[in-house]
Parts: sequence; structure tokens; C-alpha cells
Amino acid sequence: MYHLTLKGSVSTSDIYIGAGVFGETAKHVAEKFHPSRIHIVTDSHVAPLYLEQLSAQFPIAVTSTVIPAGEEHKNLDTIAGIYADLCAAGITRKDLIIALGGGVIGDMAGFAAATFLRGVSVCQIPTTLLAQVDSSVGGKTGVDLPQGKNLVGAFYQPELVLIDTDLLSTLPDSTFCDGMAEVIKYGCIQNASILDMVAESNFKENITDIVYECVSIKRDVVQQDEHDTGLRMILNFGHTIGHACEKLGNYVDLTHGQAVAIGMAAAAKLNAALGAPDLSERLIEILKAHHLPTELPYAREEIYGALLSDKKKMANTMNFILVDRFGEAKIHPFAIEELHQHILAL
Amino acid sequence: MYHLTLKGSVSTSDIYIGAGVFGETAKHVAEKFHPSRIHIVTDSHVAPLYLEQLSAQFPIAVTSTVIPAGEEHKNLDTIAGIYADLCAAGITRKDLIIALGGGVIGDMAGFAAATFLRGVSVCQIPTTLLAQVDSSVGGKTGVDLPQGKNLVGAFYQPELVLIDTDLLSTLPDSTFCDGMAEVIKYGCIQNASILDMVAESNFKENITDIVYECVSIKRDVVQQDEHDTGLRMILNFGHTIGHACEKLGNYVDLTHGQAVAIGMAAAAKLNAALGAPDLSERLIEILKAHHLPTELPYAREEIYGALLSDKKKMANTMNFILVDRFGEAKIHPFAIEELHQHILAL
Repeated sequence: MYHLTLKGSVSTSDIYIGAGVFGETAKHVAEKFHPSRIHIVTDSHVAPLYLEQLSAQFPIAVTSTVIPAGEEHKNLDTIAGIYADLCAAGITRKDLIIALGGGVIGDMAGFAAATFLRGVSVCQIPTTLLAQVDSSVGGKTGVDLPQGKNLVGAFYQPELVLIDTDLLSTLPDSTFCDGMAEVIKYGCIQNASILDMVAESNFKENITDIVYECVSIKRDVVQQDEHDTGLRMILNFGHTIGHACEKLGNYVDLTHGQAVAIGMAAAAKLNAALGAPDLSERLIEILKAHHLPTELPYAREEIYGALLSDKKKMANTMNFILVDRFGEAKIHPFAIEELHQHILAL
Repeated sequence: MYHLTLKGSVSTSDIYIGAGVFGETAKHVAEKFHPSRIHIVTDSHVAPLYLEQLSAQFPIAVTSTVIPAGEEHKNLDTIAGIYADLCAAGITRKDLIIALGGGVIGDMAGFAAATFLRGVSVCQIPTTLLAQVDSSVGGKTGVDLPQGKNLVGAFYQPELVLIDTDLLSTLPDSTFCDGMAEVIKYGCIQNASILDMVAESNFKENITDIVYECVSIKRDVVQQDEHDTGLRMILNFGHTIGHACEKLGNYVDLTHGQAVAIGMAAAAKLNAALGAPDLSERLIEILKAHHLPTELPYAREEIYGALLSDKKKMANTMNFILVDRFGEAKIHPFAIEELHQHILAL
């Protein structure tokens, strides 16, 4: 089992990674918290698999909110429902909220915990690969508005993150592959040995080590830039064009991981067009080996339009993450019109 | 003009206090921020008086949300409306939200700012005495749920607080008196000279000095206990019984200040019953001079019941703020049953 700590401005996260960590949840909770009650937030996919097993570990009152699975429920109405359940359960500031699920559950339970009674401690137990390597660590929470995704949220560190790679065995293959896009991202931006690890045909046997390497990077980056004002941007490699494609597909045609895969392949080609070494061939090979798409599925002009409406745009330049060689990311500010030409040429 | 700074865990608040500070808003904003757009949140009482005057100060795009006045609008639906206006205005993380109004506006605009795009800078311009000496400083934001008041919120420091005591001239007398309860509270818990100042018949001529003394105390306390886990509790002098009475009056029969006045008088009597010097006579005299009530308006058993349901209760003890001599507060943990007997005897 691995143990990492992430020192945030307000609290410190303890992160445990390993096969079987889930079964030790009550022990880890007791080491860190002294709750009188625990409220678990999960979804309709995860609840039948793990809710009972988790609840039964605790000798104290445990209540839960089970949300219908799917990003379409990541809205303020669902948050209001969680608040109502927290009130009914009598949760106080001394108690604990557990997020048991993928990214959507982590985002919503995290936001509810950040804002109920101005902050209740939260423990993240991510059940998807994507949540394990990315969204469960770092304290970003989010809720969608009718106007766009993650427009509401808070930075709020989970004080405990329990990453059990055994839970990945119940994932559908496509959901597992989705998370691999983020794993490959970490290899590209910070640690090229991750790319070697995932290139092995038996890489799943080493999945705990792979997850650990990814989470270590995330921990380091977040610790330096908790509130996303600089360095943390490198975690967005592949996400700028990726988000544009996700949006064009109405968040239905492409999963997040598929969109990020497409975005990374495009960013690699774009950087080669700028004169950097062409990494796209090897990157595309790795992505394909993990059943991820690599071709832009929309017209270039449409992609550029969607990209312009992205919230990360500032004035007449747009920051773009580029990778000159595997393991090293840089932030490149594009003039908008220059970016336009490069997107059209992809 | 006075200038105070409050160093929070994430950002530092600059607090300016003086007659005429409001007219200098644009100057103070330009010193601290570089927004492309400003969104003002205010209410239907304040907008006709000050919104135009504020908007006209800025050479950049200014938009606004005007909320119907009244605590009954302090709910998640109103917050969703603010989010929609922020989206429509194109507010980004580099922009600024201004809260122009009393405590309800400060709470809601502060919460919206804390959570829109995971945090947009906010400037508080409090227009009531209560908001000037209390709620605009310290970063507590709050939204009511059907289940109770301020059950949702965040700790989020306003980076700029502009307290213009000239704005108090447009307040109804009753709203001014409401704020005096909090002023008197600061005198009781930390600085007895405030009580001497407000005892003068011409005290309004020195209102800027009085507000400054109060805000200084709030600043010191919040800086030591930003997230309300210890010392900040002393700011609740008079609030425990006060909240119980407010609740019993359905938040209609008593204003917050009236309830706090009643709570402080009761806390003084209760402490005398415990053997401490009896400060209730002088305290009641001061409160009455400021047209504030001092008698418990509900049956003692009812008050005790309402108090039990307060969110600050923990297990079998309840922390209560007591004042042994003016200017010195202490936190006294009561056994629940002991408190019960003391409330019945009031």
C-alpha cells in the first residue's frame, strides 16, 4: 500500500493507494476523524456493488444518498437533494461525508461537503480509474449549470482519499479505457516511464503502481498550485481541444477520456507543426492500444468555435499545453488567430 | 479613513472604514483588482439609492442582479438566479463581484462568488450597521434551506471591504438600532470603551470610530480562527438564546439585533446566577437606550427546546459565551441538563 499526503491551504489530505484499501475504510476513518454519523453519497451503479459493504464497516449511524447514475444529474437540484438528506440525517460539522463513486459523485459529494454547514469533512473513495488517478485528488468539486459544465464548484480538499485498485475489476472495459486516457496524459506531461508501463501487455498486473505514479504527479502539481492559477494548467494537456470535442458531441458522443485522447493526439500534431519533435506517432499507437480514439471527429472550424467559448480563454490569447518530449509539458500562450490557423491545419 | 488588513488562509482582505469611502470604490478596486467586468448584487431597497452611483464609477462593463429585499429570498433559487446572471454577463475568474447591501446580500453574493467558477473575487460594500460591524468582515457566507437558516455556505474572504458610514444615514431608525446590538456585543466581549462611546447622547457623531473599534475586534478574532473552530465562538455572545428566540418568532417577530439584545441580557442574568458579578443592570440600561428589547418574550421551556435544536450543540454539552466583566468573554461548556435548569430559572 502506498501513502501520500497533500498539504492544502486549509487541511491536509491523506491518500492511500492499494489493492484492498476499501476493506480498511473504517480503520482509516477512525485514525483521522471522530464522527458521530457518516453519510455516504453514491450512485445507482455503485450502490448495489459496494454500499452495503461500506456501511457495514462502521459501528456508528450510517445514512446514504443514492443518485441516479449519469452526468445529467450533476446539477443544483441534486445538490439540494443531498442537503435535504444531510439535514434529515442530522449531520453536524463534526461528522463525515463519504463520496463513493466516479467523478460525478466525487464532484457533487465534494461540493455538498464543502458547502453544507460551511464545510463538513469528506472522504473520497473513487471507484473508476478516471476518478482514482484524477478527480478524487486535488479538491476540485463541481456542479453543472444549464449554461455549461462545472460552472459552480469549490476548492475543498478531501481529508482522506482511499484508492482501492481492486474496485476497478467491476468496471466495464470502456470505462476502464476512459481512465487510461488520463493515465497516458500523466506519462506525457511528467513521467515518461508511465508510458512504458502501460505499453506492457500485462500492464493491469501493475495497475496499483501505475495509479500511484499518476496520483504522485497530481499531488505534486496541486500542492504547488492548489487554486489553479498557474502550474495546475499542465494537467489540462489534451483537454482544450478535448473539451471542445466533448461539447460538440453534446457530452454524449464522446466520453471524457475519449475526448482527452483525441485532444492529446491533436496537441501532439499541432506542436509538430510548430517545429517541435513529432510525438504523435508513438502517442497515437499507445492510445490505440488502449482502445482510445485519436482522430478529430468534427470539422476544424467547428472545433475552433467551441474552443473559443471555453471558460479558460482570456482576452486575445489562449494558454495551450504542449509536450516537446514525453515527460515534459509546457504552457504555450497562443494568439487567438494563430491558434485558429493551426486548428484549421490539423 | 481607517485601513485594516485581515490575513486569511487563501487571501488577504483590505478593509477601509470611513465617511465617503463609497465614492472612492473605483479607486480601491483598481488598486487591488484588474477586472474586465464587474457584477453588482444588491436588493430592491438599496438599488434605487446607490446602484447607479456605484455603477457609474467604473469605466468597464457593469451588470447587476437586484434581488427582492428580505431574508425570505435568501435561498438556493435566488443563488441559481445570480449564477444565471453571472453567466449572461460573461464573468470570468479574473472579474469582480460586488455585494452592495445588508447581511442578506453579503451572504448570498459572497456565496455565489465563492462558488461560481470555483471562486471569483468579491468586494463587500455593507449598507447596514449590522453588516458594517459584523457580517461583511470575516468571510462567512450563507444560504438558508427549508430546514433552517445558513445551513449552506462557505468560508470565503472578501478581498476588499468598503465600509462607508455615510451610507447609514439612509437607514430606517429601527435598522440602525438593530446593528447597535452587535456594536454593544463587541463592547461586552472585548472592548468596554465601546460601551462608554455608545452611552454618549451624541454617539452618532463618532460612529466611524465606533465601527472601526468593532471591525478591529472582528478582524483580530477571525484572523486567529478563520474557520470557526474555537475563539470565533466568542462573537456569539447573546446569540445562543438569541437564535432560539428568533426561531420561536419565525424570524418575523424579532429582528436579529433584537434577538441578540434579548440573548445578551439573558446571558448576563444567567452568569450572575452562576455567581459572577451581575452586569445585567448596566447592560439592560445601554440596550434600552438604543431601543432594544431585553426581556425574554417566550416561555423558558420553549426557549430551551429551540436552543437544543441549534446546530452549535454537540453531544451532551453546549458551549455558551459568558462575560464576567465588560470587555472579557469566556467560553463556558454547560452540561445540557444544567443549562436547562438555568434557562428555566431566568
